[in-house]
Amino acid sequence: MEFKQEWYEEVRKAQKNAYTPYSKFNVGAYLIAKDGTAFHGCNVENAAYGEAICAERTALVSAVAKGYRPGDFAAIVVTTDTDKPSSPCGACRQVINELCDDDMPVYLTNHNGDVIERTVADLLPLGFSGKDLN
Amino acid sequence: MEFKQEWYEEVRKAQKNAYTPYSKFNVGAYLIAKDGTAFHGCNVENAAYGEAICAERTALVSAVAKGYRPGDFAAIVVTTDTDKPSSPCGACRQVINELCDDDMPVYLTNHNGDVIERTVADLLPLGFSGKDLN
Amino acid sequence: MEFKQEWYEEVRKAQKNAYTPYSKFNVGAYLIAKDGTAFHGCNVENAAYGEAICAERTALVSAVAKGYRPGDFAAIVVTTDTDKPSSPCGACRQVINELCDDDMPVYLTNHNGDVIERTVADLLPLGFSGKDLN
Amino acid sequence: MEFKQEWYEEVRKAQKNAYTPYSKFNVGAYLIAKDGTAFHGCNVENAAYGEAICAERTALVSAVAKGYRPGDFAAIVVTTDTDKPSSPCGACRQVINELCDDDMPVYLTNHNGDVIERTVADLLPLGFSGKDLN
Repeated sequence: MEFKQEWYEEVRKAQKNAYTPYSKFNVGAYLIAKDGTAFHGCNVENAAYGEAICAERTALVSAVAKGYRPGDFAAIVVTTDTDKPSSPCGACRQVINELCDDDMPVYLTNHNGDVIERTVADLLPLGFSGKDLN
Repeated sequence: MEFKQEWYEEVRKAQKNAYTPYSKFNVGAYLIAKDGTAFHGCNVENAAYGEAICAERTALVSAVAKGYRPGDFAAIVVTTDTDKPSSPCGACRQVINELCDDDMPVYLTNHNGDVIERTVADLLPLGFSGKDLN
Repeated sequence: MEFKQEWYEEVRKAQKNAYTPYSKFNVGAYLIAKDGTAFHGCNVENAAYGEAICAERTALVSAVAKGYRPGDFAAIVVTTDTDKPSSPCGACRQVINELCDDDMPVYLTNHNGDVIERTVADLLPLGFSGKDLN
Repeated sequence: MEFKQEWYEEVRKAQKNAYTPYSKFNVGAYLIAKDGTAFHGCNVENAAYGEAICAERTALVSAVAKGYRPGDFAAIVVTTDTDKPSSPCGACRQVINELCDDDMPVYLTNHNGDVIERTVADLLPLGFSGKDLN
């Protein structure tokens, strides 16, 4: 699904709710389902750094809690305040890979409005999945 | 905040959205904010087991993404289909500890309608927090 | 197993290897097996905060990789540079709970040599375990 | 560093220590430092699935606990019992990315002796790193 300018406004809004007392590094995510419903996500940090949850995963689990399932998503947008748009951490790529189609677009943006496009498969080549477990 | 029977209906609804292709162990969570708003959560598993996210954390990050902050929550209810209600895993207790008041009630329930009550501090005694980092 | 002063020297040595470019919060762990073998652990952080691994888990997985199993451990010591010894985060308590006996002592220490003793069960009351999954 | 047949024997030995009561999916890792020292790793699961730690991370944190640092590693080998060698999950790729050189080889193997080679950068394109945080 092609990038829409309104998604940029939404992902920047999502970023405003980031809970980042430890890193001050605010990330926003905006997940668009194929049925048009969308979910905002932000990073939620913890004094125990390892228990932090990123913006992308926040948006994805919010959607699953509403009943959305693998195959239901059309695109995800991420935003940071970095000179070059940052891309998802490995754990987020793994969760995106579990829940989204291989060719789903992932849009990386920043405060300057730069947009980089990759697919789910681009970000996790040779992705580990449920097929490996059988 | 005292347990309300309607919360039980809601947490059992939340459980229905669990995404558990690997464990088939379905968990639901229902988080009630002090302003009356509530959030459903379920566990969201992954082929890479370590990237699973539990029901309690799903509910909590969904709330943070809507702007809720530490101090805003009144209670959380968890449900499983176990003979004795299960309690949150350690990572969830850590996230609950970060975002909820020490004396907030955590209600553990099961398919039989049993209810066990503990506080946040009961479940993570000597809890690690932001105060340790300073 | 009762606390031994030599363990304190070892856990302080373990702490020196902490990889903490993000928090500068150095933690050490020292895990003693029943057969007398011991394992050093330290926290290993990541730019993606959620992928940090704590000192306690580092020591425990190092032991499992050498063939140690649940029931093989006698004690674990943790150290931080805090006025009051810090205690393990929730995720570490969960991993300790999986691999160690309920009544195994967990010793919390700091740079001043203070020592607090708790058991595994003290730190994760109503612990979630494999029994819940059946 | 080019693949050595002896590494295959070692990674298969590492796999034998996997603690996998939940998935029965055994993974081994073998991490070779530039100074010739090597570390065995295996996956260590947990009743709380999200607290599982993979073989690759087990090997890496074991090395850091011995004083090894980013830039010290020459190669890592992973093994599974799958028809096609499995590759690391996203969280492991993120930890490998933090601690290993971009062009370091990652060798994926299986019980049949198949070997696939990729670099660290191949597995985490546009990798999120400490540079993003500044």
